[in-house]
Amino acid sequence: MHACLSALRRLTDRLTAIVTVADDGGSSGRIRSELGGLPPGDLRMALAALCGDDEWGRTWARALQHRFGGNGNLSGHALGNLLITALWEELGEPVAALDWVARLLGARGRVLPMAGVPLEIEAVVRGVDPGRPLELSTVRGQHSLAKTPGEVLSVRLLPQSPPAVPEAVAAIDAADWAILGPGSWFTSVLPHLLVPELASALLRTDARRMLVLNLVPQAGETDGFTPADHVEVLAAHAPGLRLDAVLVDPTSVRGAHEARKLEEVAALVGARVHTAAVAADGDLPFHDPVRLARAISSIIDERG
Amino acid sequence: MHACLSALRRLTDRLTAIVTVADDGGSSGRIRSELGGLPPGDLRMALAALCGDDEWGRTWARALQHRFGGNGNLSGHALGNLLITALWEELGEPVAALDWVARLLGARGRVLPMAGVPLEIEAVVRGVDPGRPLELSTVRGQHSLAKTPGEVLSVRLLPQSPPAVPEAVAAIDAADWAILGPGSWFTSVLPHLLVPELASALLRTDARRMLVLNLVPQAGETDGFTPADHVEVLAAHAPGLRLDAVLVDPTSVRGAHEARKLEEVAALVGARVHTAAVAADGDLPFHDPVRLARAISSIIDERG
Repeated sequence: MHACLSALRRLTDRLTAIVTVADDGGSSGRIRSELGGLPPGDLRMALAALCGDDEWGRTWARALQHRFGGNGNLSGHALGNLLITALWEELGEPVAALDWVARLLGARGRVLPMAGVPLEIEAVVRGVDPGRPLELSTVRGQHSLAKTPGEVLSVRLLPQSPPAVPEAVAAIDAADWAILGPGSWFTSVLPHLLVPELASALLRTDARRMLVLNLVPQAGETDGFTPADHVEVLAAHAPGLRLDAVLVDPTSVRGAHEARKLEEVAALVGARVHTAAVAADGDLPFHDPVRLARAISSIIDERG
Repeated sequence: MHACLSALRRLTDRLTAIVTVADDGGSSGRIRSELGGLPPGDLRMALAALCGDDEWGRTWARALQHRFGGNGNLSGHALGNLLITALWEELGEPVAALDWVARLLGARGRVLPMAGVPLEIEAVVRGVDPGRPLELSTVRGQHSLAKTPGEVLSVRLLPQSPPAVPEAVAAIDAADWAILGPGSWFTSVLPHLLVPELASALLRTDARRMLVLNLVPQAGETDGFTPADHVEVLAAHAPGLRLDAVLVDPTSVRGAHEARKLEEVAALVGARVHTAAVAADGDLPFHDPVRLARAISSIIDERG
């Protein structure tokens, strides 16, 4: 998400990031269990990624991203998580509070929670116990899911049909482009499609739809997934969803067979595959914001 | 402090609040013991009192003053204390960090810590044990002192000669007026005089000096103190300090004897007593910012 928003901010400031609110680990998990309310962490990350490109924006982004050290009660908390939570409690309006933080950062765009209530993710996982590789289990909670061995087959949200934030629905309706991914596939990318009002908006919007694939499978979530598998599982969670473009890095596709399979699966949801070098240099599988911006921009130019 | 800054902001925005950093209770005390560094609470209060008089300033002041509820690890922490601490850790420059918070609030003035290191207050108290009313004890820590019975005779700082913040010394040197008080006499007003560089600056500055007296004695600190006693104990902690004006509310002075005594003690440090109604309506002994502004303004006009 950080790389994608860092890319998109180079292209426009008419940008709305719609962010999962199912985190239950780390600083967000502790805040959520202690004070209730939405987990702020992913929203904070998105806001920091959109911070203004001057000393003011960068300084406040540093402050929001600051984590307390030591071994005490504050250890590990990100200041921005506490700031967002304080504003939520003080103003009573999650979206208005996030808009205040966006103004503080001079953010190039808006950050919205995908639902107005905190969510839990529940997954059906095959082979949680390595001794019984075919057995299906239910794993609840994003934090547990990230640590569980086995193959994730599907996810659902609890509560099952959470209310979307109206501003998020409106943003999808008004968009020129809706971009899904990259990110933790089952816990950050798919959840949006499980909020009924967001899924409907994605189906009906006049916006073109782009899917940005992950560079590599993610341990614990998508072990062994090919690019085609990623598209397939997304389509399975969003019946009727049509895509226009699927963006993939050439290093993510191993051999002609995988490439052909990706073309086929993409075609089933109406999308063309765009292959472009979007990975960052170095050993870690991160998207490079500049390359990603260039690739997205060229798809947008091409597709109008 | 809050009332005094709320008054002074009506008169000028060339205002520097120099704030004690000896708090060791509550949210500040917990932060101080967990993460080290200066206690942020009194600085936060001063910054909030100077916040810009528009929706922006008031909203961020509300956020900074927000206290977390519940019964967990965050309970009782003021968001602003955490924000100031995060900026200190992130920027490594206490004064620069406070200036950033002041800019966030659109503050009418600047807030500085009186010393660059966290301080402890140690007091000589008579009659801590009510069974031995004449016995002298040493009580260490602002928080303990506030809860201890007995009569405070004197205070000192630990470390004993802490370094002043240079910006605070410069502000006193450049001031037209230096205003001391009101506030917790031994733990908020006197400590400034125990920082050698601040005491020297107060002695040598061309600024006129005003002392604003408390409305009533404070339980645990100045029980039974008359207005004259307040001036006397201040003078005892700042040898050679001359004052120009002592501002007192008429309800604080009980009878002609106390009034005469106050005039006498004030004259010993060179000051004239100005009596003006500065208390707020209602039963609680708070200064009214508008009345205090008017009284201070009229003293300034009179004394040039």
